[in-house]
Amino acid sequence: MKKASIPSGTRDFLPEQMRQRLYVINKIKGIFERFGYEPMETPSIEKWEVLQGKLGEEGEQLLFKILRRGTTVEDLRLGRTQSVTFEAFDDLVDLALRYDLTVPFSRVLAMYGQLPKPFKRYQIQPVWRADRPQKGRYREFYQCDVDIAGTESILADTEIVTIVYTALKELGFPAFRIRLNHRKLLNGLVSAAGGAAHFKDICIAIDKLDKIGEDGVRKELLDRGITEETANNLFSWMGLKDEPLALIERLRPIIGDHADGQAGLQDLQSLYNALIAQDLDLRCIPLDLSLVRGLDYYTGPIFEAVVDEPAIGSLSGGGRYDKLIGKFSGNDTPAVGATIGLERIIDVMQELGLLNALPPKTQVLVTVFSDDFLPHSLRFAQSLRAQGICAELHLKGASKINKQIKYANDRAIPIIAILGPEEVAQNNVQLRTGPTEQITLPQTEAPQQIRTLWQRLFPNT
Amino acid sequence: MKKASIPSGTRDFLPEQMRQRLYVINKIKGIFERFGYEPMETPSIEKWEVLQGKLGEEGEQLLFKILRRGTTVEDLRLGRTQSVTFEAFDDLVDLALRYDLTVPFSRVLAMYGQLPKPFKRYQIQPVWRADRPQKGRYREFYQCDVDIAGTESILADTEIVTIVYTALKELGFPAFRIRLNHRKLLNGLVSAAGGAAHFKDICIAIDKLDKIGEDGVRKELLDRGITEETANNLFSWMGLKDEPLALIERLRPIIGDHADGQAGLQDLQSLYNALIAQDLDLRCIPLDLSLVRGLDYYTGPIFEAVVDEPAIGSLSGGGRYDKLIGKFSGNDTPAVGATIGLERIIDVMQELGLLNALPPKTQVLVTVFSDDFLPHSLRFAQSLRAQGICAELHLKGASKINKQIKYANDRAIPIIAILGPEEVAQNNVQLRTGPTEQITLPQTEAPQQIRTLWQRLFPNT
Repeated sequence: MKKASIPSGTRDFLPEQMRQRLYVINKIKGIFERFGYEPMETPSIEKWEVLQGKLGEEGEQLLFKILRRGTTVEDLRLGRTQSVTFEAFDDLVDLALRYDLTVPFSRVLAMYGQLPKPFKRYQIQPVWRADRPQKGRYREFYQCDVDIAGTESILADTEIVTIVYTALKELGFPAFRIRLNHRKLLNGLVSAAGGAAHFKDICIAIDKLDKIGEDGVRKELLDRGITEETANNLFSWMGLKDEPLALIERLRPIIGDHADGQAGLQDLQSLYNALIAQDLDLRCIPLDLSLVRGLDYYTGPIFEAVVDEPAIGSLSGGGRYDKLIGKFSGNDTPAVGATIGLERIIDVMQELGLLNALPPKTQVLVTVFSDDFLPHSLRFAQSLRAQGICAELHLKGASKINKQIKYANDRAIPIIAILGPEEVAQNNVQLRTGPTEQITLPQTEAPQQIRTLWQRLFPNT
Repeated sequence: MKKASIPSGTRDFLPEQMRQRLYVINKIKGIFERFGYEPMETPSIEKWEVLQGKLGEEGEQLLFKILRRGTTVEDLRLGRTQSVTFEAFDDLVDLALRYDLTVPFSRVLAMYGQLPKPFKRYQIQPVWRADRPQKGRYREFYQCDVDIAGTESILADTEIVTIVYTALKELGFPAFRIRLNHRKLLNGLVSAAGGAAHFKDICIAIDKLDKIGEDGVRKELLDRGITEETANNLFSWMGLKDEPLALIERLRPIIGDHADGQAGLQDLQSLYNALIAQDLDLRCIPLDLSLVRGLDYYTGPIFEAVVDEPAIGSLSGGGRYDKLIGKFSGNDTPAVGATIGLERIIDVMQELGLLNALPPKTQVLVTVFSDDFLPHSLRFAQSLRAQGICAELHLKGASKINKQIKYANDRAIPIIAILGPEEVAQNNVQLRTGPTEQITLPQTEAPQQIRTLWQRLFPNT
């Protein structure tokens, strides 16, 4: 018999992994909700026509494409589908698994025009990309997106950045940076440097700074026909470091009367002032003029969150995209959002030891003394559950009590309930939390006692 | 521009629907966990070879099949894939979306031999079937599965039935029945009726009782070559109604010395005794000898949960399947489980009005008095969130306060926080829950006051 296996780049999450994943997901979810964002879900499958033309050629190649239902191998051999000759790919493939959560969000906004604005939603669901699998890169992986649509207010950008900051703080990352920049400011800087005609090329080159270094980028700029003077200007300005508000003032004369550039500076000033009002630590949120972000569709503030240890790339990224929704509806709707990459967050947290010692879910193992006493154990376990306590009944029939205790230890169930003849005769139960730690008390008092023991064992839950 | 749309049989879940869905999912999850079951997830895509031969021909036709990556329309036209001539369907399609959660669970048990036994897991994830969409039937829908593998104990069957019972009770269904039967008992009854040679045919016919009635089933039995005497016997026994333990005793002489049949009766007796020990209302859990369950793989107790109002078919079903995991591993592993169909549960709960009046998530709208006072509102909102309160900041800049109050009302945010010049001068805040209900208090006392107000508005959350 051939050994069963799963598709390359996908994973099964067994209970132990799920405990870590749910811990992180619930933290992130809780933060989204504290900022007034509400959950939304979309289908895993989208129409081919919805995805087409939104992801670039490379993105489209990474889609998992679904064959039209009813297509047989004979059809395909004869060059037809459902008895119709196929001409194009669309005749054979009508659906694909979603590639990200931004396109579905934009589609939803285009489809349901009556949604209240601003519309604030979060979405935590898997996406699929047929990328070459490698460490930290999967073909099915979760994204946690938080977006707000329908407002141009810079407070919306502030809020999204604050959410990412809060998430990284509360997940316990000891050191992180949210690099912040603005597409319009970039525009102004490139103009001032004399490279306005090559804006897109320049962005593509600078985006590789982390990978190929300054020399590599400089070479690529020159190769693309950008003058040495322009390159020199860009590098000297991109390297400017200062406190954000001071840096903004230093940039004003450089940008001069470039309207977009000054608008970008104005946005950034309001954004940083709002961050300061919220007492956020600005050392974690530097204004970084070398940040570009790969995607074409950003139109305003952009950001990317990184940790230096371990080196793993960005944990979160996002920005303002005021023109994307219009691609679906014909009407531009301003929007800003962030994606938090669940898998990388978990990988880093595991490496930093932030996911050790998560408490178990099951609080009590109710043992079975003998077949005669089974009804008592059944009833007692059920009474605990009615009080909201997670109680497992030992199912293997009446094994030796030591075996049952070992069963609980193997599963990290911290409290063991014993109902033997003496206990039952007096409507009592014995609760054990260790070889010498045990207490006998009336069954009716057990739920409260279990809560107290639990609180002592896991004070932070 | 063509209007964007989603694939037939799929749905977007906007925040209002999500609130209902999450309420139900969290209830079910909480119940699974109270019985000591742990979460597990598997990939949405499974290898074609894993699904093949497990679902029957009809099931396989309903799979969403994924084209091998890199296949182009030219390849297909030329009868090849990735430059290799294709011979069979497998050459073109290597993956499919999962059809249910039982096959993945069985695959996991076969793949990870070291899993502790009994292995108790729950799994709440979508499945996909390219069925003809209709009311209550979707192409992407959620299942909530709870299973236990690695034990033959009838206590495991008891536990699964108890979980379904508890779920339906706690979700608030005023009337439901969990029909219970046993495959081995059915076997014994069919033998006693003289139909042993036609067991499978008889099961297929009886399974249609709800749809085509007794006359229809009788006709089908006779058409399949079953004698009138056998049919008469079966109908008279299937119609037997009594309290379960009494009915079991009445069946003993009918079953006679049929070993399987008697083993089934023995199981049912233990099962009902355990249900009684847990004080479950047996009127909700009738022994129903006409229950067959469509799937082939059941080997022991089987059950199905129904409500009579509204008529919608079964909300949950399951049973023991001791031979399925062996299909993947070669080693039989006993297992029993249930599927709770999330979509039908939600449909019925909506019809019964059980999902009205769910509380909102966002507790407070923090208004902005004027641009000058924005920093105060920003800081105050952030301080509420730090205390775990869900607080939305009004983002549209300093609109008229009445507009901001209307914004909160439109979104059902029950508490409004106002920080005007008077409040700020004294480090106070005004909290409003209605046109005449307002209180001014120190900002530091606001979190506690909000919790108190919330408790009063939504006592059960």
